[in-house]
This record gives sequence, C-alpha cells and structure tokens, in this order.
Amino acid sequence: MKLLKSHKTFEGRTEFWSHPSRETKTEMKFSTFTPAGTIKGCLIWLSGLTCTDENFITKASAQRSLAMHGLMVICPDTSPRGLNLPGEHDAYDFGSGAGFYVDATSEGYRDHYRMYSYVTSELVQIIKEHFKVPKISISGHSMGGHGALVIGLRNPKLFKAISAFSPIVNPSAVPWGQKALKGYLGDDTQNWKTYDSCELLRAGQKHPKTILVHQGLSDEFLEPQLKTGHFADLAQQVSQPHQLVLCEGYDHSYYFISTFIDEHIAHHATCFG
Amino acid sequence: MKLLKSHKTFEGRTEFWSHPSRETKTEMKFSTFTPAGTIKGCLIWLSGLTCTDENFITKASAQRSLAMHGLMVICPDTSPRGLNLPGEHDAYDFGSGAGFYVDATSEGYRDHYRMYSYVTSELVQIIKEHFKVPKISISGHSMGGHGALVIGLRNPKLFKAISAFSPIVNPSAVPWGQKALKGYLGDDTQNWKTYDSCELLRAGQKHPKTILVHQGLSDEFLEPQLKTGHFADLAQQVSQPHQLVLCEGYDHSYYFISTFIDEHIAHHATCFG
Repeated sequence: MKLLKSHKTFEGRTEFWSHPSRETKTEMKFSTFTPAGTIKGCLIWLSGLTCTDENFITKASAQRSLAMHGLMVICPDTSPRGLNLPGEHDAYDFGSGAGFYVDATSEGYRDHYRMYSYVTSELVQIIKEHFKVPKISISGHSMGGHGALVIGLRNPKLFKAISAFSPIVNPSAVPWGQKALKGYLGDDTQNWKTYDSCELLRAGQKHPKTILVHQGLSDEFLEPQLKTGHFADLAQQVSQPHQLVLCEGYDHSYYFISTFIDEHIAHHATCFG
Repeated sequence: MKLLKSHKTFEGRTEFWSHPSRETKTEMKFSTFTPAGTIKGCLIWLSGLTCTDENFITKASAQRSLAMHGLMVICPDTSPRGLNLPGEHDAYDFGSGAGFYVDATSEGYRDHYRMYSYVTSELVQIIKEHFKVPKISISGHSMGGHGALVIGLRNPKLFKAISAFSPIVNPSAVPWGQKALKGYLGDDTQNWKTYDSCELLRAGQKHPKTILVHQGLSDEFLEPQLKTGHFADLAQQVSQPHQLVLCEGYDHSYYFISTFIDEHIAHHATCFG
C-alpha cells in the first residue's frame, strides 16, 4: 500500500492511498480520514457517477464531525482505472467512473469490474488488517447510495449501519441502472435483482438498524433516475426500519451532502454503539 | 451580473457569478455564500496562487459556520482571465491566477491587473449595492492572506476585521513577492512597500481590531516564502493587536484551512458586533 499524500486535519489525518487490487487486477486508489485517538468505527463512503476517491474527502465537510465522533472514513474510487475495454470511456454513466458496485459477468468487464467484491471483501480486509478497525458501516451518494443500500442489505452483519444521499434505489427500473446492469450483467435480469435495493427488500433482505436517507426535492434526477420514494414505500411494507428525510430546495450536489453529513455521521456513530 | 450556478446549502445559497469588470476590463468571476435570514456582515475571502473563485467555497467547509453566524462570504478570482499579455501564462506565480492584489503599473499589465482596486472599490460596491450588506471584513490564504493584510491595513475603516491563513507577510523580502512586485510594479521599490504588510506596519498603518493569523508549522512555504514571524514581531513592536496561532503538524492546504475556519468566522462575527 502506497501513501500518496497526507494532510493533518482536525488533529487527525486526511490521506490518499494506492494499492494493487486482487479483485480488479488494477492499481486502485482510495482516500481516508483517520481521527486522532481511538477509532470507534469506519464508514465506507461510495461516490457517484464521474467521481473519484477525491470528491467526498475534499467537498463533503465531513472531517470535523468524524473527528468529534472518533470515526474513520474510507472512500474508494468508483471504478477500475487504466484499462481500455470496449466502450469503457465512451460515456459518463458506464465504464470508468461508473462501476455501479457490481461484479460484472460480461465479456472483458468480468475480469476487472468487480466493485462489489472490491468493497465487501478487499476494502473490508484493508480496514480490518491495515487500519485495525473492526466495526464498519456504509454510506454513499447517488450511484454510491445505490451501492451502500445494496451492499448493506446483502451483508447486514458486516455493516453496522447504512445511510444514503439521493440514492438510485431501483436501478432495474431507471435508465442509468438499466444501461449499467445490462452492460455489466447482460440480459440475466434475475442477477440484476441482487443489485437493486428495492428488489432486495422485496426478497426479504433486511437490516436491523434504521436506514437513513436524505433526498433533495430540487434534485433534477429524483424523478427520472433515483425514485427514492420506491424504497421508502417498500421499506414500509416489509417493516425495514428507515427514515427518509425530504429536503425542500436542495439539489444533487455536494453542497447538499455537506449540509446534512453531520446527521449521517451521528447516525453511524450511534449504530456503532 | 450573471448568476451561473446556485445550490441551496445550510438553508442559504452557494452561488457562482460573472460580471464585466470596470477595473480589469475583463469578465470577472466570484462565488458567494449567503445565509438565510438577516446578513450581519460580508467577509471577502482572497485565495492563493493558482486558485480561482471556486477553491474556498468548495473546500473550506465554511458554510455551516457562516450560516450559524449570519455572515456572507464573497470569493473573487485571483486575477483577470481571458487575456494574452506577454508572460501572463508562463508560470504559476505570475500573471493568470497570481494577481497578488496590486494595481499594476507595468506595460500591458497596468490596463487589466488592477486587483487592489477591483477588491477595495468594485467588489465592495457590489457587496453594498447588489447584496445590500453594509459591513465588510477581509481574510485570505497565502497570496490572499497577503492581500487581506495589505487591503485591511490600508483601509481600516472600510474593513471591520482582518484575518489570514499562512499569509505572505513580507513579499518584498521573498522570491514569490519579489517576482510579482517587480513584474507588476517595476523597480519602484517605494511602491512595493504599499503592498507589503510588514512595511505598512512599519509606516504606521494600523487596524483597531485584533488581526488573527493561523500558520501551520509543517507548511513547506513558511520559511522561504511566508515568514509569518516577521509580521508578529512588527505587530508587537508597533502595538498592533494581533494573535498568531502556530499549528503543529499542519501544512499549506485547504485541509488546514477547514480545520480552523470556524475560529476565523467567529472572530469576524465578533468584530462585526
């Protein structure tokens, strides 16, 4: 593991890392904030389309609150990099910067686009073995909110808490999700369901803690791509504890995230106990 | 004045603007955060070398505290843009992105590089007339910390408070400053002194309120370029109220600024009364 940059922040450290990944078979980057003193737990943050490991750590204003609660955050990149697969760099919503947190099965992509396993297995191992933090939770934004809901619901023992900002809750039913799932998984729509938080709730997957979701009501993607209400309705039906906070006037940006990130960090801290 | 982007943030708004400037005779950009409710005062933030109007507003984590205190911030770009003067784009520390907050007198530059007048006259007018905020203060980082100290000391009635992070306090005596002052002002070193906070203190310029300065002790530029101690020594000699906070382990980055920005905002709020 290579430490690329390190900056003292709120008495802790904001750092940028690189390592050869066994899952993606590429060099992967991630950023971290580690507070001073005892670390109570580690939040994995999954970013959205076009993002890298840098967006959250530079723009979300999370370090103050993380330091206060004694939490670490780790922010992986959103896809493998440095490859040249067919179609990989043609659009912002597929391929590089758009891994969708799935294990691909399609030709070419299946050898590298293994972001589900990268997060749930390799990154978890790094948190436990390198950073020596045993308790882990998960959150994210947009495509990363989808990733957090899916990964958390499928691994409720491993992840002590789940939250999301503006998540794509029902990717099988919206253009972003359909393009990505078809591209990475082909036409096997049964497999698509294992990467769709609404379908997971429908299939009986649950998490013991309240899932916290913030959604801006002036978010241009809410109706066509996110459909946050689908998740809240299903959670209600299957008695999954959840809190959907609808935020008047807020959009899809990191300014929205920075406004409410403290509430998410407090929620994760409470779930770590 | 054109509103380019607007994002609800902490119940207020983070916005990006563009306008034709009478001082620089170019289109100039600035960003703002305006809190909801009554605005108690406006902080002008001056950024450092290579920065634009975007760095502070996206990276400093200032909006939470600004909203809490009812303060607005306005962040101008660091130089005119869109010109093609001789040598303007050859280096990171002169010309575009490096206006040094002076009114240039050198051939070519004197017609556009008027950042001192842009800030003290044109931006002040925009704050008062467009945003209707009568009380103004000033802060900044590195080259912008220099700008804040110089502009505040030369206009102690106009600016209710001054603070700085990692300022270039004595530009006449360091390589960054000497290159810029020579390039913009030629060999007239008497004129250089009007843009040097140490020389201004020496010449009797004072501000009635405590000048707050934070300086990281792991800042690679401290010794060769910033020389923060020169300012503290002179302030002591001439009884300028000041507080220099030396921060063990912190560097020159926005992670340092984000750690201590709340203290600066509280200081400005106190000075606004």
